[in-house]
Amino acid sequence: MNARPNSAPVPAEQVFDWLDAEAARRVEAGLAHRPQPRGATPGELDLAGDDYLGLAKDKRVAGAAAAAALRWGAGSTGSPVNNGSTELHAELEHELARFCGTQAALVFSSGFLANLAAVTALSGGESAIVTDRHLGASLIEGCRLSRADVAAVAHSDTAAIKHALATRRKARALVVTDSVFSVDGHLAPLAELSTACREHGAGLLIDDAHGFGVLGDGGRGAVQAAGLAAEPDVVTTISLAKALGAQGGAVLGPRRVIRQIAETARGFLADTRLAPSSVAAALAALGVLKAEPELPGAVQACAVALAAGLRDGGLSVSSPQAALMSVRAPSAADAANWAARCAEQGVRVGFLRPPSVPDGVSRLRLTVHARLTESNVDTAVKVVSASAPSAATS
Amino acid sequence: MNARPNSAPVPAEQVFDWLDAEAARRVEAGLAHRPQPRGATPGELDLAGDDYLGLAKDKRVAGAAAAAALRWGAGSTGSPVNNGSTELHAELEHELARFCGTQAALVFSSGFLANLAAVTALSGGESAIVTDRHLGASLIEGCRLSRADVAAVAHSDTAAIKHALATRRKARALVVTDSVFSVDGHLAPLAELSTACREHGAGLLIDDAHGFGVLGDGGRGAVQAAGLAAEPDVVTTISLAKALGAQGGAVLGPRRVIRQIAETARGFLADTRLAPSSVAAALAALGVLKAEPELPGAVQACAVALAAGLRDGGLSVSSPQAALMSVRAPSAADAANWAARCAEQGVRVGFLRPPSVPDGVSRLRLTVHARLTESNVDTAVKVVSASAPSAATS
Ligand SMILES: Cc1ncc(COP(=O)(O)O)c(C=O)c1O
Ligand SMILES: Cc1ncc(COP(=O)(O)O)c(C=O)c1O
Repeated sequence: MNARPNSAPVPAEQVFDWLDAEAARRVEAGLAHRPQPRGATPGELDLAGDDYLGLAKDKRVAGAAAAAALRWGAGSTGSPVNNGSTELHAELEHELARFCGTQAALVFSSGFLANLAAVTALSGGESAIVTDRHLGASLIEGCRLSRADVAAVAHSDTAAIKHALATRRKARALVVTDSVFSVDGHLAPLAELSTACREHGAGLLIDDAHGFGVLGDGGRGAVQAAGLAAEPDVVTTISLAKALGAQGGAVLGPRRVIRQIAETARGFLADTRLAPSSVAAALAALGVLKAEPELPGAVQACAVALAAGLRDGGLSVSSPQAALMSVRAPSAADAANWAARCAEQGVRVGFLRPPSVPDGVSRLRLTVHARLTESNVDTAVKVVSASAPSAATS
Repeated sequence: MNARPNSAPVPAEQVFDWLDAEAARRVEAGLAHRPQPRGATPGELDLAGDDYLGLAKDKRVAGAAAAAALRWGAGSTGSPVNNGSTELHAELEHELARFCGTQAALVFSSGFLANLAAVTALSGGESAIVTDRHLGASLIEGCRLSRADVAAVAHSDTAAIKHALATRRKARALVVTDSVFSVDGHLAPLAELSTACREHGAGLLIDDAHGFGVLGDGGRGAVQAAGLAAEPDVVTTISLAKALGAQGGAVLGPRRVIRQIAETARGFLADTRLAPSSVAAALAALGVLKAEPELPGAVQACAVALAAGLRDGGLSVSSPQAALMSVRAPSAADAANWAARCAEQGVRVGFLRPPSVPDGVSRLRLTVHARLTESNVDTAVKVVSASAPSAATS
């Protein structure tokens, strides 16, 4: 018999001592910074949020959220098989599918859970998954949960995707990708990926969290822009918390895909349905998007202008293809300090550090939204450039 | 070289053919039923939802949600490291920790993601996890994601938990349990589990989704009732979508635990923060709970009365220790049909089928809430008993 040294009694206050060692490691690596919570009407110029169309505070959207809370209650009060599914959820699902041109849609309490559910329900132990190494965090978690054989290939490398599909051990396969990668704001080669999938009998799952509302006809998203929205082998996920300014997520695709997810995914079945106020906000935001189809183009132009200004200042800026871009920072600590200096000067920017950056390069993360003026963009360029660490300018 | 039969081209419309076969299998197994979405003011008696205190439509709660949407916007517009964390989130975290007597709290967009984040951040490849086989779905997903050695032992068997802790291969260990098991509404032996954890140097993570607001002093939950809320080796998760009638989730525990989760868990870092309206609703509901500490006791008494009535009718009813109970059904199809017959007669009940029932036994799932009258309970007993399949009465 062995002495079982692993299971000796430990004083209660020492059980989590290992967390302090981990925290110290994060401090040393510059990964411990947490931004201050903001107020309701921050005075700062916001280049950190994902409210790309500036709809979160739009009276039509916030007003719809308020009215729905009063009419339907603060919460949906149940999971989908119990009493959580309301006619309001069904209406949003219908409108999203119609807008994007898919057969069906399913609404979730977050884009994160929509991704988890879609990946797990469409793969499994008998599947191979092939992904891009720059995949977003919720898709990564979905892949890890799936029990599938997962191959993560080099960023934006369709040949590598094809090779992984061709050499897989499983009959079924699913290619999983972001449309707009959240690290640099680059677009995935969706049409190419679709061709690769068809050559190799694979389904294609695309997270359009950062494309929906910004790209495509009237903001119908990157999948629509690539002509793939109605395809029988393509599935799209979106977040309702970015361009629509609300909360929640959705999966869009063929009816049988939606049915599979609705009937098997724990992230759908074992989660209280989205609050009515958020459902109503997303519905109202979709209405604004239909009424003002010029909004997405304005956002794209604004992103291009901001990137050009920063590049002129000597910074290493990605080429934004939607509403977000990144600026390279010398280190994780530099990124956090740089963002803090911008905030002191009234410009709020985000930042990315390991483990959120697959290549280990820390960055500032900047987003634009439809309400930014030219003078806002000038201010942002000045403040971000002036507060750059010296090693950030090339 | 091999012929790579797995990667042959497939016509796009056939890629997801396998989903139809899976759907047919679910139909055959009686697992395909999806309830109709409900309206805003359903005429039915609701015994399906988790709004245990009847707060979702309380004017103080729904009104707070509406006001917050107008003041803060429909969405929080960002992840925690970008601009999603507001003073309202910080206030809710402070109030939850104070109410429950823990050092700190962290709010999530769902109880599901709170569970996923807590399990993954507090375990990992160097940990063992020991769980009860009746664990809720989101904790199961968390365990699968964790990379830990996971042992799921027999339901409510502390000796088996001890044995698994004693024979584990990893130095670190975490016992993961529901407080109130959502299948039958039974309470886990929390004090016993805590003793077992200390004898074996393990942390204890408790999902109090169905205990919070219903058990403990003034609804402080099952963990507080067991005297464990402030312990340095205990972590609690809750949902804001059950007794509080809102949406979202939270982790409560020692400061260093909260810090670990906030700085490392993808389910926190890569998810838009909870919508302000839901944060405000949860805050207002917490205020009602403090002002009306008699609500939880009323709910418990109501559950006991309903279970007694059903048992008198010859049904096989679990002994509810909080607000939920289950009634055994002969088969999955019977459970769904039984629930449908109840709905036709104006009583909405939930039901559980594989894979949501770990022992494979399908059940009706009934919940009570603080607004049910005695006559409501009588009606429920009559309708559920009268529409029972004959094999359900013993
Ligand atoms: C690419 C991507 N997908 C999905 C999500 C998750 O969406 P949600 O915030 O609605 O959970 C995010 C971040 O929030 C994201 O950046
Ligand atoms: C025991 C338990 N934990 C957690 C959850 C998830 O909480 P939420 O609905 O807030 O995601 C549920 C179901 O909804 C549950 O029953």
